[in-house]
Amino acid sequence: MIKADEEQRKTVSVYAVRIARLREKLAAAGLDALLVTRPENRRYLSGHRSPDPSSATTAGWLLVGPARAMLLTDCIEYEAARQQVRPLEVVQAKISLREAMAEALLSYRRVGFEESHLVFGTYRFLAEKTQGEVELVPVPGMVEELRIIKDESEHAAIRKAAALTDQALAHVLAGMRPGTTEREVAWGLECWMREHGAEGMAFRPIVASGPNAALPHAGASERPIAAGDPVVIDIGARLDGYCGDLTRSFCLRKAGPRYLEVYRAVGEAQQAALSTMRAGVSGKEIDTIARERLMAAGYGEAFGHSLGHGVGLVVHEGPRLAQTSTDVLAEGMVVTVEPGVYLPGWGGVRTEDLVIVRKDGVEVLSGALKEPVIKGVEA
Amino acid sequence: MIKADEEQRKTVSVYAVRIARLREKLAAAGLDALLVTRPENRRYLSGHRSPDPSSATTAGWLLVGPARAMLLTDCIEYEAARQQVRPLEVVQAKISLREAMAEALLSYRRVGFEESHLVFGTYRFLAEKTQGEVELVPVPGMVEELRIIKDESEHAAIRKAAALTDQALAHVLAGMRPGTTEREVAWGLECWMREHGAEGMAFRPIVASGPNAALPHAGASERPIAAGDPVVIDIGARLDGYCGDLTRSFCLRKAGPRYLEVYRAVGEAQQAALSTMRAGVSGKEIDTIARERLMAAGYGEAFGHSLGHGVGLVVHEGPRLAQTSTDVLAEGMVVTVEPGVYLPGWGGVRTEDLVIVRKDGVEVLSGALKEPVIKGVEA
Repeated sequence: MIKADEEQRKTVSVYAVRIARLREKLAAAGLDALLVTRPENRRYLSGHRSPDPSSATTAGWLLVGPARAMLLTDCIEYEAARQQVRPLEVVQAKISLREAMAEALLSYRRVGFEESHLVFGTYRFLAEKTQGEVELVPVPGMVEELRIIKDESEHAAIRKAAALTDQALAHVLAGMRPGTTEREVAWGLECWMREHGAEGMAFRPIVASGPNAALPHAGASERPIAAGDPVVIDIGARLDGYCGDLTRSFCLRKAGPRYLEVYRAVGEAQQAALSTMRAGVSGKEIDTIARERLMAAGYGEAFGHSLGHGVGLVVHEGPRLAQTSTDVLAEGMVVTVEPGVYLPGWGGVRTEDLVIVRKDGVEVLSGALKEPVIKGVEA
Repeated sequence: MIKADEEQRKTVSVYAVRIARLREKLAAAGLDALLVTRPENRRYLSGHRSPDPSSATTAGWLLVGPARAMLLTDCIEYEAARQQVRPLEVVQAKISLREAMAEALLSYRRVGFEESHLVFGTYRFLAEKTQGEVELVPVPGMVEELRIIKDESEHAAIRKAAALTDQALAHVLAGMRPGTTEREVAWGLECWMREHGAEGMAFRPIVASGPNAALPHAGASERPIAAGDPVVIDIGARLDGYCGDLTRSFCLRKAGPRYLEVYRAVGEAQQAALSTMRAGVSGKEIDTIARERLMAAGYGEAFGHSLGHGVGLVVHEGPRLAQTSTDVLAEGMVVTVEPGVYLPGWGGVRTEDLVIVRKDGVEVLSGALKEPVIKGVEA
């Protein structure tokens, strides 16, 4: 019993700390409160796990002021919210959610809102209802700035999602044979993850073979995979809200000398980046290190995307490892490191690991084998 | 060859007709063009099937003017878009999508945008870039008004999605036994649909048993289903973009007299509504007919939601069958008819069919059996 109590206190305090940090940001920005409509931000600040029912409806909005922090929800979502959201006040909207929110906004003068998430029509409604009383201020990404550095509970959740992703890949690769289609592999991976605890996919799985492997964002087609085809698999489980993200490339059964050369170049670029990463190094610097390696190997042009991105409640978030990035690595950030080489008509190779940034280096979370040739099942 | 050509011409003409109808609406509203950002509306007008990569990024936007209709996309999505979107011009953004859209907007004076989909930040960007040149006008749902009446190709797609949903339910019910959990049933249904051609679920499956069946929007928990438990299953396959939507209720192996009474009352309310439905009848009228039947049976209070909604590219769309609805049924509409009775602590019954509205009645698409007791597999 004591242990359970402690566990609960710890959980409650995680959200209390996050709300306190948001309040510091609000004060610094001269805002009285923040209206939080993005579901991942709602979850981050309150522990509210219910997903939005659809892209046009919400399971609830937060309003965080200096003294009060409340989750506003409707009659359908109220009971679940009350059970999930321990440290926050949960309020049930009597008429519509936006009517109730307009009323709640009137307690403040300057209220920020998430301009990359709130749709114009809802903004217009709230602005009209509070006209002359409340100044609504567009805010680009205040909670996202907090989310960029992960705490220990988040590291634990991402570690679990990464491990499940590793295991799914090992399981499905062991059963591959020439003739298996891309879609069969993708579905096999998704099934394995869902049946072993994933609540969903972090993103649409990519299984790209042959010439498809030259497209960085291919999906999974009906193409049968032949022996010797280059294959790129990019997948991630979602677990307790947090995302895994893993890419492995290989040829089934046999690989030609060109494949082995590209594979080695990508691996060396990744290794060079990984061994330079630590708190204090810039995202641009790390991208440059990998990019220069690939250039030196003659594949600079063939690496058309950036080196990596943060991963958390969303699979693409800050920081960015890219030529245009102004981010600097800090302890606790979780990022992907994923150089790739894509040769139109031939195929491609991408290798991606998920890592936690530490003071003196990185902790690699991805444990999947890196092998340029896999055997699959015997025919 | 001739047949394939004809097929293609027919497909192209479907989109040409839709664009022409949108242009009539634009003219009537005094708008020069409409910026379409909602993915389902993009698909409806252009045939573009690629989903948006995430809630924060788009696979492309449409800009429909009196003479020109273009799909603007980025380098990653361009090739797929060009192959999918036959009747429209496909333009690749050189820098960012929103920069390119701001430039394209400058060809017009008054441009509508979808205020229930466009986020405030993007509106602000476009408004600042075109200030003094273009008036941006919020539009609530212009393409949604077109989508409310379905054409034959849409009926065919929804018919397929409904049939697949029926088959999945029959397959999974045949394998149920006491002790099967709600989540196992939900996952079994999803697997069957995905493995038989569904591209995804139309919505998160609901499998609610025992007291959970009293919550209209329950998900699927780890609760094992016992013999005699009331069970509500609400599912739908998504196929070619279109949604199925089906609810069946039953007890496993045995049902008490109260269950049979509630089941009969729900069935009679549904039948009364179905037999009154035809083009020209109002959504409010139909809801009233079902509601009065349940009231007469003593379950008026226990029917807490509206009777039905339109289904198409989105699982909840117009028209609404509800007390607050102002919609009138018209030929070609596709709607659900789903009365329900929910008794807290005990459970609930909901029966839902998907129908096409015809001149003199309805065509019922749902073919799943309606039985208050199912046997499942022998123990």
